[in-house]
Parts: sequence; structure tokens; C-alpha cells
Amino acid sequence: MPVDHLTADLRSAIDAIALIDPHTHINPLQPASKSLDDILGYHYYTELAHSVGMSQEPLAPSVPARERVRAILTHMPRYDNTAQYAWFLDICKTFLDYDGEPVSGADADRLCDAAERLMAQADWEQQVLTRSKLEGVFLTNEFDDPLEGFDTRRYIPCLRTDDLVFKLDQPSVRERLAQATGVEVHDRTTLRQAVGQLFRHFTSKGARACAISLPPDFRPQPAGDFTLTSDPVARSQAVFWTLAEHCRDFKLPFDLMIGVNRRVYRAGVFQGQDLFDNRTSLMLYAELFNAFPTVPFCVSILSSTLNQELCSFAWIFPNVITSGHWWYANVPALIAMDLRARLQAVPKTKQIGYYSDMYKLEFGLPKFNMYRSVLANVLAADFVRPGLLSETRAVELARYLLRDNVQTIFRVSLPHG
Amino acid sequence: MPVDHLTADLRSAIDAIALIDPHTHINPLQPASKSLDDILGYHYYTELAHSVGMSQEPLAPSVPARERVRAILTHMPRYDNTAQYAWFLDICKTFLDYDGEPVSGADADRLCDAAERLMAQADWEQQVLTRSKLEGVFLTNEFDDPLEGFDTRRYIPCLRTDDLVFKLDQPSVRERLAQATGVEVHDRTTLRQAVGQLFRHFTSKGARACAISLPPDFRPQPAGDFTLTSDPVARSQAVFWTLAEHCRDFKLPFDLMIGVNRRVYRAGVFQGQDLFDNRTSLMLYAELFNAFPTVPFCVSILSSTLNQELCSFAWIFPNVITSGHWWYANVPALIAMDLRARLQAVPKTKQIGYYSDMYKLEFGLPKFNMYRSVLANVLAADFVRPGLLSETRAVELARYLLRDNVQTIFRVSLPHG
Amino acid sequence: MPVDHLTADLRSAIDAIALIDPHTHINPLQPASKSLDDILGYHYYTELAHSVGMSQEPLAPSVPARERVRAILTHMPRYDNTAQYAWFLDICKTFLDYDGEPVSGADADRLCDAAERLMAQADWEQQVLTRSKLEGVFLTNEFDDPLEGFDTRRYIPCLRTDDLVFKLDQPSVRERLAQATGVEVHDRTTLRQAVGQLFRHFTSKGARACAISLPPDFRPQPAGDFTLTSDPVARSQAVFWTLAEHCRDFKLPFDLMIGVNRRVYRAGVFQGQDLFDNRTSLMLYAELFNAFPTVPFCVSILSSTLNQELCSFAWIFPNVITSGHWWYANVPALIAMDLRARLQAVPKTKQIGYYSDMYKLEFGLPKFNMYRSVLANVLAADFVRPGLLSETRAVELARYLLRDNVQTIFRVSLPHG
Repeated sequence: MPVDHLTADLRSAIDAIALIDPHTHINPLQPASKSLDDILGYHYYTELAHSVGMSQEPLAPSVPARERVRAILTHMPRYDNTAQYAWFLDICKTFLDYDGEPVSGADADRLCDAAERLMAQADWEQQVLTRSKLEGVFLTNEFDDPLEGFDTRRYIPCLRTDDLVFKLDQPSVRERLAQATGVEVHDRTTLRQAVGQLFRHFTSKGARACAISLPPDFRPQPAGDFTLTSDPVARSQAVFWTLAEHCRDFKLPFDLMIGVNRRVYRAGVFQGQDLFDNRTSLMLYAELFNAFPTVPFCVSILSSTLNQELCSFAWIFPNVITSGHWWYANVPALIAMDLRARLQAVPKTKQIGYYSDMYKLEFGLPKFNMYRSVLANVLAADFVRPGLLSETRAVELARYLLRDNVQTIFRVSLPHG
Repeated sequence: MPVDHLTADLRSAIDAIALIDPHTHINPLQPASKSLDDILGYHYYTELAHSVGMSQEPLAPSVPARERVRAILTHMPRYDNTAQYAWFLDICKTFLDYDGEPVSGADADRLCDAAERLMAQADWEQQVLTRSKLEGVFLTNEFDDPLEGFDTRRYIPCLRTDDLVFKLDQPSVRERLAQATGVEVHDRTTLRQAVGQLFRHFTSKGARACAISLPPDFRPQPAGDFTLTSDPVARSQAVFWTLAEHCRDFKLPFDLMIGVNRRVYRAGVFQGQDLFDNRTSLMLYAELFNAFPTVPFCVSILSSTLNQELCSFAWIFPNVITSGHWWYANVPALIAMDLRARLQAVPKTKQIGYYSDMYKLEFGLPKFNMYRSVLANVLAADFVRPGLLSETRAVELARYLLRDNVQTIFRVSLPHG
Repeated sequence: MPVDHLTADLRSAIDAIALIDPHTHINPLQPASKSLDDILGYHYYTELAHSVGMSQEPLAPSVPARERVRAILTHMPRYDNTAQYAWFLDICKTFLDYDGEPVSGADADRLCDAAERLMAQADWEQQVLTRSKLEGVFLTNEFDDPLEGFDTRRYIPCLRTDDLVFKLDQPSVRERLAQATGVEVHDRTTLRQAVGQLFRHFTSKGARACAISLPPDFRPQPAGDFTLTSDPVARSQAVFWTLAEHCRDFKLPFDLMIGVNRRVYRAGVFQGQDLFDNRTSLMLYAELFNAFPTVPFCVSILSSTLNQELCSFAWIFPNVITSGHWWYANVPALIAMDLRARLQAVPKTKQIGYYSDMYKLEFGLPKFNMYRSVLANVLAADFVRPGLLSETRAVELARYLLRDNVQTIFRVSLPHG
């Protein structure tokens, strides 16, 4: 039910753009779902069901998967206004031959049966990739990931560094690091040795980015020396700065996902405990952006109140790039506001339009659909209708956001591209 | 002059939903206006007239009401672009048989005459309620209100606690409290006794909520002991926490109206001196939300920059509910932005769409009209046109926001419902 | 390509309103451009070109102007989605007989030739003013500007005070001040004498405003005494407060441009190094607004997250006026949001709709065009279509924003008006 022909035409041209998804949590050894439990295990559904009254009991591993699915679906009519419900319905219709609506607990068996039957097909992963027009999928790999057993040109490694920056005081993290690198880290010198090892390993396996999520009060500072008993803030700063130095030396873009507070709702479901604080600013990152002019910083923000800062920083700093619409900011109303400002204020070569953040491949399609719908509307209203761009050039702009910039910024060469 | 048929159809279906107004300042012993002076005495009009140059002289009690009305109307052409002017015009047209426009000082006598004549009717209150489709109206009662002389099923009591939390150092407040409860409060033990008394009194009279407005830097903390000479912050925190404990024990939702700074413009008109500071966060309330999982916290924000936080907190915390569009955020442009995000991000059972905040019954209709107009537009553009909801289901969604959730969350049973 | 007839009609009526531009950086002795280098020397183009990869080499004074232009144009296709590109194209089409598109390095010679030929006309300045419907242009004059050699009724002086407030510790600034006033400033008494001199000089030359840009953490405080070795914050506060006292005594409005951090990107191009921090609040200015009730404070904000505060402060404080859409907030998506809220919340007599902030006259037309386009859309959607205003009255509202309020607030009498 498109609003008008222009938007429909733009949408269909945008739909034809093959995608490289620049940030996901896909497990490349098990990228697609095997059951509806895999789909509804995505934290969005467990946390929304919990938010409207579901206890955590159905989430226990001992509960049969179908009972868990039934519990989540039974609560779904209470949140069937949300963007996440729309993703789920899109998955049901596109991948599970479902045509009913609204979805509720009564659909559990029917949907579970369909999912098990269809997802058992040998080529399911490829079917999902093809229907979703996904040619490349970035991963988020722990630093001690061997990065083996998968095609690293399709599933592109990315070094996740949260544990290094924020948990190096934990013996288990240091042990994993020693295991992965052969270096016992206890000061900045040994840290550099270990991090150097990680970057060599990751880049040798085709890694194309380093990534981290950061709390709203984090402030990067040039690294001084530190010991394991240093103040945690100073230690985090030292490790972070060391990573930025290696991004520079190894020519890896650094994905900064700014603003998450962990474990805010302590009784929340798994991955459903984190929130954010709007009282933060990219000014905290000014020294970092000044210090590493050759490192592309792909910045994601959790609070839309930072969007104008992000636009302005990307407009002024050559090395700051706007990146996607993250987590709590990933609903159409916020995407639309943020996208409109970015399209008018940030050079088109410095915007990574969207990433799915998905854990299972089936979510790429509905999440990119949500984004493409917003994008088509914004291009029609703000560019084509006012005469600023022709339809053809508007679609070219979309291609920068959805594909070209990912290739250029992360230096991705695709198996088929 | 509706934009289109779909929006017009949605609007008329939404208009048919009978309302329960979950937050007002109505005096149940005098709920309706008796004159135009009662209408224009609403602080919005006195402060806007003052803002464009009216001195405070016409507001003195010694000035004849009609002269005060004339002064305010004479300044109205300077602010006839505002949402508040639109409310006033809606009242004039709906309740005062007025069809001219724009309104100015020249209309004073004509409007005053009409108001006096019409409002003198014996059934005026009922006429206003009926035309406004108001079946229930929440009050905001001072803690020492006897709650007598009115039908508490139509005018539903709510315990207002600002004085207890922020003015317990004032002897007059403690005297009123002692009078109301028989308890002299000087520490946490006596405070608990007094507050217990208040909750017993209020719930026995049908109170359905506890409410408070809070400054932007307030941070709830678990209550320690305190004395009357304690640090005011610690005392406020102790009283507030004690109230939350009683909300839990008496199963009352707690309305939190977050963000007002009092007496910022010190020469302002009565109730026209308060403003806000956007530098605040719901993170300040995280411990409260964790500590009282069974208390529904109905959260109103004064700064729209908090809206995404509110959406995300309501999405994650089962006990956080979005509540209305408060005061400075209560203009259509801000309502539209805030509402769009809430409808896409917060379960529909956890949203209280709107309250009027009115002091006189005549304002329910124009204020809810403003909200319904925004709501119809958002439902059309974001849900029905993109094919996410049928018209019927969009109206059901509106009903959750305007009525069903008020009944469920505040456990309201209506005289006629 | 207007969206609809109503918007097109409103736009053409708005286009007919003759303008007074209440804030620019025009040099009245050289107001119009002489070459394309003057146009593309505007920091928006140098910083965007630099942002997408242009080195600073072409910006060196030794580089021939045409090579600089070619370098900037060569990078333009990477930022041809931005609002600034749209301004440039508007200038090319309106003033340079250009009809191609998109613009790139290949157009350098053709555009440079056209610019040189056309701008060499003796009446170019007048042509630009006439086509732009500009009847008055406010300047931003350094405190030691002689204000001579131009028609101060067309080019209206405004006392810029940044150096006084933030750089009085610099001997060169104090020398300039001594030169301009005959007073050696070393404490509050001598400061008052010097500032009094400046205000007498400026007002005698027809100055209509005092102006300053302020960092996000600036907090005006009543002036105590100070010496040149005082804490810089206290000194800045004392100078600022002294200026406000003189605005009161000389009846000059005070333009406050709130929120800029200087030299954030230290390797940036000239004027392309500044950014902002959203963590600020108009609450910092509450004491100022209280202390000077007769001074009109025309407030510009750099972060749109302050817009609701600005609306509310202008609604409550009689002496607070909303002023334009500044710098990083001056893109259509942000203007639209900010304007919608202002039009619904702030009396129409207290809004200065727009200023160009231009350095060369040719930018008045495209920048006001951008604003007029947003304004026509907002008036159509929020006022005329919902039946709140007739078309005629909507255009009257526009006239307040674009002309009448500038005349009233700054007490401007025009040569032709």
C-alpha cells in the first residue's frame, strides 16, 4: 500500500541494490535459524514479552522450545504495534508462508511446524541470503575467535574489543588473551604486544574493522602507562587508545557504538538489561578524532539527541562517518528524523546508511526493509519532490548509503562483486 | 478541513471513544467554569499575555473580571498562532456559540455575556462532561484533602505529594500533616506512620494514584533515616522512597512528572514562573524502577529530549509506563514526534496517551481534540497507509491509549462502564 | 516542483515579502562577490571539500584563485546531497546564468568566467540586493570598527563583543580597546567607561544591536569587580554583565548566539574548526533574563536539542525572543522541526524567523529561499490545512517572522520603508 507512485518507484529501485551488512552478530558457523525458537530468541521479543508481563520462566533452557515460543507469541498481541512485531510479521510472510494476522499464541504450532520444515532445507542459508540480497555480512568476533571454518569474504571478520577495554581486570579475560596471543599483559608495553598480535591475526583473516560499544561517560584520552591495579577508567582509556593506534597502523576503520549503560534493569532478560543516558556528547571524542586523522571512525549513537552532533562532527572531521541507526534508535520515527538531517548535512560519501545488528540471517530482510521504506519516503519528500535530485540520482544516493560506502570505507571486495 | 478521508474516518472513530482523563487539577466542588474569567484565568493565557507585554495589573483580584478578560483578549492577537489560542477558539465555538475570528479585545463583552448566560445553566457541568465524552476525571488532591462532597467514581482522587517531599521542613506543612494524620513527623518512623495514614485515607476514598512533580536533578535513593534538620536532598529522597514503598504496599500507581524547575522567572504571573532544564535523564530513576517492580510508574516528561529514553525505559522495564504530553511538551509538533516514537517502540498496553491537566472542565475537549488530531494523523501515516494496521485495528490501538490502559493500570471501574 | 497548489501559493506570497536580514557578516565596503572564489571561499565549501578528502593546499593564498575553485568543485560531487550544495546551485542558476547539473570540477572555468563577467558590472551589488529583496542588512562589527564609508541605514551596524568578553587578557585586544575609546581597562570601573564609549559610538552610528557568540558552558553572573589577572571565567562574566547593563541603558537588543566550542578540530580549515556540545541549557541564562527585563534577548541556539527550552523560555520570559536557525542547525530538516514548535508555542511577535549569517550578499537569496520553502510547507501543513489560519493570515504570520518583528524589536526604520 504505497503512499504514491514516486515513493513506490524509488522503493523498488532501492530494493534492487545488493547489500553488504556492515555490522551483525551472526555466528558464521550457524548463520541461519533452525526453528522459530531461534527467531523469537532474539532479545527484542523476549524483552518485549517480559515488558508486558511474561515471567522469565519460559526462557529457562529446560523449557521445551515450543512452549517458549508459545509464551512469547501469547504476549505478542500486547506489543503488536511495535517495529519489532512488524519485523516478525515480515519474516513470517517472507520466509514462513504465513498469511494470517495478527499473530498470537494460537499460531505457535503452525508457525513452529513451518519453520522446522523450511529451515531444515539444505540450502536454507543460501535461500535467505539470496532473498535478502545480502552479498556480504560483517561479523563481530571476540578477540580470541580462531576465525576458521567459514568463508571470510562472505562473513567478514571484525575485531570486537569490549572485553579488552572494560574487562582486562578479569583474570579470565587475561587468560583468554594470553592464550590467543602468547603474551601476558600487565602494562602498556605488553598490551601493545598482545594487541599487535590480535591485529595481525584478524587482518590476516580478512578482518575489515575493529569495533566497540562504549558507555555514555567514556572519554578517550591519550594512553599513559598503566598496571592491572590502575584505576579502571585510566586502564580502559589506555587500552582504548592502544586499539586506536593499531587501527591506524593496520589501516582498520574503528566502529564506535556510543552510549550504552549495561545492566540497568538487573532483573531483565538476557541482553534486555541495557539502557542509555542522553547526557553525553561527541565532544568527549574530539581528542581522539584529532589524534588519528587517518582512521575512519564509524560512529553509531544510541540516543537520537546526539544526531545533530554526529552530523556536525561528520561534516567537519574528515575521519568521522555516520553509521546506521542503533538499537533503541532503530525505529522508523527516529530513523526518519536522523536520516533527514544526515542526508542534508553530511557528505554522501561519509554515511553508512544501515546495518542489521542481527544474530540470525532472517532478520536482515525485515530490518533493511524498514530502513528502505524510510529512505524511499525521505528521498521522495526531501530530494525528488523539491527538485533537488532526479529519481535516478536519488537512487544513486541510496546506493552510496547501502553499498558503495561500505565497500570504500571498509575496503571490501566481494566474492561476486 | 481534514487532510484526507482516511484521517477523517480515523478521527471520527477516535472521537467516539469515551474518555477517562487520568490527570487534571479539577476542583470537584466547582469543576466547571462560571465565567470567561475562569477560562482565561488559566495560566496559559495570563502568561502568554504577559509574555507579549501585558503588565500584571489586570490580574490583581481588585480588578473587575471583565476588565481582566478584556486585557487578556486585547493581547491575544499577538499570540493567536499558538496552540493555546486554538484551544480557546475551540472552547468559544463549542461551548459559547461563537463563530467570529480572530478573537480580540473587541470580543470581550460578547464572549463574557455568552459565558455568563450559558454557564449559569443548572446542568452546565453535565453538559460539558457529555459533550466532552468524559466519563471519569482524575483529581490531584493535596494530602490533607478530606475528599468529601463529590462522587469519587466520577472525580477520582489522587494523592499529590509534592509538599511532603519538598516542603516538609516548613512548619505549616508539618502542621497540616499532623492535622490530617494525628502524627507529628520528625524521623523516618513517624513519617511512615503518617504516610500510612494518608494512604489508608486516600485509598478508602477511592484514590487510584499517587502523584508528584520533580525537578530535573532529583535522584531517588533508598531511604535512610533522617531528621528535620537533615540535608534537604536526603530528606526529600527519604520521603519519596517512603511514598514508593506505600505505593507498593497499597497497590497504587505512582505518577512521576519529571523535570520542572520552580520559580525560574520570578516576576512571572501565578503558575507562569516555572521552566525546565533538558540536562536530565531517566537513569536517575533506574534504582527506583529496579526496587519496586510491582509499582506501575506512569512517567511524564517535560523535555521532549527525554522522549527516546522514556520509550526505551518503558520498553525494557515492565513497570514503566509512558504518560501523556506534559505542559511545555504539550504542543502538536512535539506531541507528534513523541507519539510516533512511542507507538513504534512501546507496547500498546503500556502507554497512557493523554491527560488534560486542566483546572476547569471546559478544557478537556479542546486539549483532547488537539491530541486526537495528532493521533489520527500518526495512525494514518505510520500504521494504516504502510499496511501495518487496518483502520479497525488502528482505532483499537487508539482506544488502548485513550481509555483501556487508564482503566487497567489505575484499576478504574466507572459509574457507567 | 511544488508539492501542491496551496504550498506554491503560500510560497509565492512569502517570496514577495521584502527582507531585513538581521544578522550577517557582510563587509559593507565590499558587500558583493567579485569572483567565484569569493563564493566558494565561504567556509561551508572549504570545510565540506576538506571533509571529503581535499587537502588544505589549494586554500593557500599563493594558489591561483581558479585552481582553488577547481579543487573545491572537483570535490563537490561527494557532497552534492547537502543543503550547502543546494545554495550553491541556487546561486549559479539565479546569478550566474548556469543551467547544468550536477556541478563538478569540469564546470570551473565556465562558472569562473561567468562570475567575473557578471560581478564586474558596476551595479552588481544593487542587482543582488534587488533580486534578493533585501532592504536592510545587519552587520557584525568589531568593537573598534569606525563604521564609516557606507550607508548605515542599508547596512545596519551591530556591536560584536566576543573579543571583549573572551579575550580581554590579550594585550592586543586591550590596545585596540584603548585606541577606540581612550580608556585603559584594568578593572570594572575602567571597563564601564570603555564600554560606555563603545555604545555611544555605535548608537551614534545607527547600531541596532549588540551581539556575541558563547560557549555551551558559559553562565552569566552579576558582575563583581575584577582585574586583568582574575580568573578568566569571572572576567568573562564581569564583561558580559557590563555589556548587558549597557544594552539596558542604551536600549539595544542583545543577540545571544549560544553554544559554540572553538577550535575543536584543530587541523580544520579557516572557520571550519568549531563544533558544539549539546549538554547545555538556557537555565544558565535565567538570572540574566530576570535581571534585565527591558533588554530584548534575541537567542540563537546551535544545538536543536535546545529548541524546546528556547520555545518555553520565549513563552514565559517577556524579554526572550527566538532568533533564526544558526549554523549547524541551519538545514531544512532541523529548521522544520524547530520552526514547527516555535510557531505553535511562541507568540508570533517574539520570533525572528531567519537571518542569513552570510559573508557575501549572494548568499542571502539561497539561504532565505531554503527557509521560505520550509516555512511555506509548515504553514500549509500545520495552519492552513487544519483550518487554523486562512491563507491570508498565514502570510501575515510569515511577515511577522521575516520582516515586522525585525523592525519592531530592533527599531529599524528603512531608507525605503
